[in-house]
Amino acid sequence: METLGRVAVVGAGAVGLYYGGLLALGGADVHFLLRSDLEAVKKGGLTIETGGSTLRLEGVQAYGNTEEIGPCDLVLIALKTTSNSALEAILPPLLGPNTRLLTLQNGLGNEEYLAERWGKERVLGGLCYVCLNRTAPGHVLHLDRGSLSLGDFGRPPGSLVRAVAAALGAMGVDVRVVESLGEERWRKLLWNIPFNGLSIAAGGVTVADVLADESLRQLAWELMEEARGIAVRLGHAIPVEYSRYHLERSGAMGPYRTSSLIDWELGRPVEVESIWGEAVRLGVGLSIPRLEMLYTLLKSVVSRPRRSVAEA
Amino acid sequence: METLGRVAVVGAGAVGLYYGGLLALGGADVHFLLRSDLEAVKKGGLTIETGGSTLRLEGVQAYGNTEEIGPCDLVLIALKTTSNSALEAILPPLLGPNTRLLTLQNGLGNEEYLAERWGKERVLGGLCYVCLNRTAPGHVLHLDRGSLSLGDFGRPPGSLVRAVAAALGAMGVDVRVVESLGEERWRKLLWNIPFNGLSIAAGGVTVADVLADESLRQLAWELMEEARGIAVRLGHAIPVEYSRYHLERSGAMGPYRTSSLIDWELGRPVEVESIWGEAVRLGVGLSIPRLEMLYTLLKSVVSRPRRSVAEA
Repeated sequence: METLGRVAVVGAGAVGLYYGGLLALGGADVHFLLRSDLEAVKKGGLTIETGGSTLRLEGVQAYGNTEEIGPCDLVLIALKTTSNSALEAILPPLLGPNTRLLTLQNGLGNEEYLAERWGKERVLGGLCYVCLNRTAPGHVLHLDRGSLSLGDFGRPPGSLVRAVAAALGAMGVDVRVVESLGEERWRKLLWNIPFNGLSIAAGGVTVADVLADESLRQLAWELMEEARGIAVRLGHAIPVEYSRYHLERSGAMGPYRTSSLIDWELGRPVEVESIWGEAVRLGVGLSIPRLEMLYTLLKSVVSRPRRSVAEA
Repeated sequence: METLGRVAVVGAGAVGLYYGGLLALGGADVHFLLRSDLEAVKKGGLTIETGGSTLRLEGVQAYGNTEEIGPCDLVLIALKTTSNSALEAILPPLLGPNTRLLTLQNGLGNEEYLAERWGKERVLGGLCYVCLNRTAPGHVLHLDRGSLSLGDFGRPPGSLVRAVAAALGAMGVDVRVVESLGEERWRKLLWNIPFNGLSIAAGGVTVADVLADESLRQLAWELMEEARGIAVRLGHAIPVEYSRYHLERSGAMGPYRTSSLIDWELGRPVEVESIWGEAVRLGVGLSIPRLEMLYTLLKSVVSRPRRSVAEA
């Protein structure tokens, strides 16, 4: 595990706590930047419920700011993309000359954002196909085994990304190293665009609700195919069979509430721009009426106050 | 006013109370079938707030069932289309050999429904372009002057429809008699399809919200044009200029909440099938992706419980 060096985790929602927690449980030197969870995690540690068993991490290295953490070798970024602008203040204290930045964020434009500001040679990316909910401070519920794809940004995978993959693989994560992070990102978007979008736009529904309703399922398929058209035009030769696979495998997720739905219901910002907005902008000139409509509706829906807000 | 004879009003929401009330105020012999409003109207009469003045109708002929009303010459039907099946029990006591049925209901299929059961020669129809809210039992708020189009079903307008128009015209209603009720219905749908639909699907928004947001306004336009394509294929030669006019005139409505939005917020049934469902079914084979998507989303949204329900 020495190969990872000092690791920082920025953005300690479900994704950050889960992967950071697994690295720490595997023996890595992991430092968590926390906000609302800080006191709870300092006191009670980190709990990961997964596959019927409960993993406990005590004595978590938890901090309220990155100055206290100091320079690291690797920074896991799992912040909501709606908070990306905060990275300009958060990241600098963590950066040494060779610090690598691994973004596990949803949607499009995150690697580009990091590359523009801190140099593309630092940037790695990961795509999480995983059902995770942060159910309480320092408490993560891992609902579905899921998988993680890791890669370097704009170049073949290097030794660090392989070391991260090995460390998480040793903890039981189904992890793979991919040649093209861009294509992988689009493969994930093909799912997030219809399912995260419809989970809100169809009135607060689960994945199972979408699949059980013939017309919602058909709409999910059409949205997925519109998104695939954009990916193909961008040079990612994702075949139609992949859309079919995506839809098929979703059946196993059951009444899963997407992260976007949970964010919306809790009154948190929803990543509308990095998922649907960027896709629509990259799809200009293509016939993507449903995706455009979904983007328009989501922008409006998430900007209106909900009548009542469930409790975090 | 004698030409109208005995008039019954069935379905005493805002539309029924308003037009029935105006006919009664003008001297017609109007009998209201009421449910939840019955006691309030028997006691306190009917109040119509319109254009800064308040019209009061005392001694309203109000009933809890149609047996008490008995046969009429004209029945105004302003029931929600989601309650159409109730007409089979409600209407028979009102029917004499020459009783005419004037439906003022929203959406598609209402004249056909009446014609199938009680004969097409009885059926008249009307389209209300009017902003009306029933704000309390027996109390109607008329927000915008609006207009009413009346016609016979499947034939040129006859003397009764002209008499109704004259009676309402005498009370200040902007009423016109139309040659083709079918075309008129589609002209109205060109507005209801985008604006009533988006008022719910975009998260509970007013007409002004739709018009103020560039992408919602564009989406409203595209939905209107998809709907117009169906109308044109059905033989109603509505020109694109009419869509433009529809969108333009909506600006004057301000922060108007559509009847569908109000129904949804109050937990009442929304007329999804008679507006969007029928349109999509009549549009089979045409390219109407946004209308299909709107129908799919609305079906889902209105079938889920809202988190909290505003008070009636």
